[in-house]
Amino acid sequence: MTAPVRIAVAGLGTVGAAAVGILRSSRELVAARCGRPVDVVAVSARDRNRSRGVDLSGCAWYDDAAAMAAEADVEIVLELIGGEDGIARAVCERATAAGRHVVTANKALLAHRGRELALAAEETGAVIACEAAVAGGVPVVKALREGFAGNRISRVYGILNGTCNYILSTMRQTGRGFDEVLAEAQRLGYAEADPGFDIDGIDTAHKLAVLAAIAFGCEIDFSGIHVEGIRQVTADDIGYAEELGYRIKLLGIASDTGDGIEQRVHPCMVPVDAPLAHVEGVFNAVVAEGDAAGIGMLEGRGAGAGPTASAVVADVIDIVRGARLPLFTVPVSQLRPARTVPIDRRTGPYYVRLTVVDRPGVIADISAALRDEQVSVESLIQRARAPEDAVPVVLTLHETREDAVQRALARIAAIDMVVKPPCMIRMESP
Amino acid sequence: MTAPVRIAVAGLGTVGAAAVGILRSSRELVAARCGRPVDVVAVSARDRNRSRGVDLSGCAWYDDAAAMAAEADVEIVLELIGGEDGIARAVCERATAAGRHVVTANKALLAHRGRELALAAEETGAVIACEAAVAGGVPVVKALREGFAGNRISRVYGILNGTCNYILSTMRQTGRGFDEVLAEAQRLGYAEADPGFDIDGIDTAHKLAVLAAIAFGCEIDFSGIHVEGIRQVTADDIGYAEELGYRIKLLGIASDTGDGIEQRVHPCMVPVDAPLAHVEGVFNAVVAEGDAAGIGMLEGRGAGAGPTASAVVADVIDIVRGARLPLFTVPVSQLRPARTVPIDRRTGPYYVRLTVVDRPGVIADISAALRDEQVSVESLIQRARAPEDAVPVVLTLHETREDAVQRALARIAAIDMVVKPPCMIRMESP
Repeated sequence: MTAPVRIAVAGLGTVGAAAVGILRSSRELVAARCGRPVDVVAVSARDRNRSRGVDLSGCAWYDDAAAMAAEADVEIVLELIGGEDGIARAVCERATAAGRHVVTANKALLAHRGRELALAAEETGAVIACEAAVAGGVPVVKALREGFAGNRISRVYGILNGTCNYILSTMRQTGRGFDEVLAEAQRLGYAEADPGFDIDGIDTAHKLAVLAAIAFGCEIDFSGIHVEGIRQVTADDIGYAEELGYRIKLLGIASDTGDGIEQRVHPCMVPVDAPLAHVEGVFNAVVAEGDAAGIGMLEGRGAGAGPTASAVVADVIDIVRGARLPLFTVPVSQLRPARTVPIDRRTGPYYVRLTVVDRPGVIADISAALRDEQVSVESLIQRARAPEDAVPVVLTLHETREDAVQRALARIAAIDMVVKPPCMIRMESP
Repeated sequence: MTAPVRIAVAGLGTVGAAAVGILRSSRELVAARCGRPVDVVAVSARDRNRSRGVDLSGCAWYDDAAAMAAEADVEIVLELIGGEDGIARAVCERATAAGRHVVTANKALLAHRGRELALAAEETGAVIACEAAVAGGVPVVKALREGFAGNRISRVYGILNGTCNYILSTMRQTGRGFDEVLAEAQRLGYAEADPGFDIDGIDTAHKLAVLAAIAFGCEIDFSGIHVEGIRQVTADDIGYAEELGYRIKLLGIASDTGDGIEQRVHPCMVPVDAPLAHVEGVFNAVVAEGDAAGIGMLEGRGAGAGPTASAVVADVIDIVRGARLPLFTVPVSQLRPARTVPIDRRTGPYYVRLTVVDRPGVIADISAALRDEQVSVESLIQRARAPEDAVPVVLTLHETREDAVQRALARIAAIDMVVKPPCMIRMESP
């Protein structure tokens, strides 16, 4: 067996420590699968004195992770710090500039700086590998870039944020409201103290940007993504969804429309017999549609130290085995332009929940607003009776273009008897 | 761009023709993803004059596929003939002997001759790639060998035969019996005229043998697999499963028990809330359990020309990109011995359906037989009343070792009032 592959680890949070743990405890297994042993020889983190439950003996310590990336005598640098800028970015830039391969779990960095990083890596022949950036332990990057390499992919979508899926699943299972379930998720460690990054859809959008670039071989275009989170989803919506034969999931969806790439993140109603409807709790799942393979779905643990470290180590093993793929499937010079299709042009069915004063004529006014925008109603539920009080009215709309729906909802919102802003959820039939 | 990669295709059935079709129609896409164009330059099939709906102009024709594998000036040979011996085997042997890489969809050949083929390939540095051999378009080989490379895999199992899954799904959805649904599947082209290979579990066992060797890095051991098919599953069993909160699926299951590798193929009751329960119709799915990643599942189209050809082309692209992995994850010299654990030692809950004469005392006799073998009953359903006629009695048994269950069933079968051989289905909690 040849000399060990030398690795530096930047960031020793839960994922970094777990990656070091696997590489140390499974050293023989990794060596057998790579044909060479793999040794962690340098590490860097903020606090040298913190105990991390992992043996760092024999590792050179660097206070400055970027200096380590530039100087340490290693072949591969693991960037497990996170953040779209700052030290994480410096680590990746300096490692690739020095011709060292980078393995990163950093979707924010890739979503914002992916193009520059890919280009810089190509200049020195370094690899940037990012399986851990999307869907944790589930090998979705590999499935899209390699498993589906013989396909023109028309659509890739999925449940990419375990926090949101936990909240929506728990709301459905318990009938409780959003705020209460969020608070519980925070107590259980499934949601951050500042949950906006997850529940407002930003984390999902970062991951979707990476998936879309890999699936379509297109420029990464985070700013082109239409992003909505799950704060507006109520227990009522979840109940009505169930009644209509749907479940509500926060999906990231990227489609090659022929006209460009449509990328959007928002709550969706998914039919209960669709595989994605049964992906519950903190699990993630990604579906790809290829012209030859048809539909494929991958599901598993999308976050947590073990699953994310599993993906990091898989990338390390790939690189040691000789994998030298471009970050976004093809070299940067061959990436298609992003050409974002705006959400206005999304076409599909819609769910709308209105809060109206229970008074004769309100349905007629709503129906007129929909008719005026050529929007066709599929079903209408107005179950509660409470004359002169606010009651919910739930509509489902036949396949319509989004701009027409938006115009109709603006008209409806302006009706006196409609007492709250309309709530709209797109229905998807994956 | 460098010179095209030259490819020979042995076998132009639906899969071979579809693979040639993709390589021709998506030539630019494949070239962009590989960094080199890929050209089919030689083909061989039984009948030169048959129309296959694919352009073979410019391809050298060989009547003898083995001669083509040995002589054609190509880097990669696609073996898409099938069969565990004969010409398919000769193609693989002669191609690898000449140092040419082989891409094959042939699970029967791998299950029976995998070790010899892997060894022969290692001697010349040839690659044998087999993504298409298991679960069609779903990249399960890649997920296990690469995506889960940082994991010790404890168990891999799944729905590996679309014909059986179609039959079982349709029986559930329609309430119809096995023979009727099989006949329909044959009319629709989902089952062969001679269906034994699929419905008796042999095809699933071939695929399981390959998956187990890849997941555990162990010798391939087809003969060590306990194999049962689905002929014995009745509409009644499917109905009782539903009532108990389960669905019946034919699973291939391979576990690393610590004592050796347990490999078995048989109908299973799967809880309705398990992801596998929702894999319906001709779809396939594979679940892997890793020590770091946890549970991961892949689902998609497990058969058919497009999905299988998708996997073949993915392997071609991998090889052109430089992938040089051993067939079974590690070199043959490092494969663990198979050390098969017999089915007798399987431990878990069981479903048993008996046909008994409706007469006082029969339940007491059955209960005594179970007690004598220390088998504990979880539930008992005896719904029909028809004094002195045959009625079904359905039992579920608590977690028990299989040998005890088998002894108890032998005692029960010997009771006069038990008028048919007991039907037993293992319950799995994936």
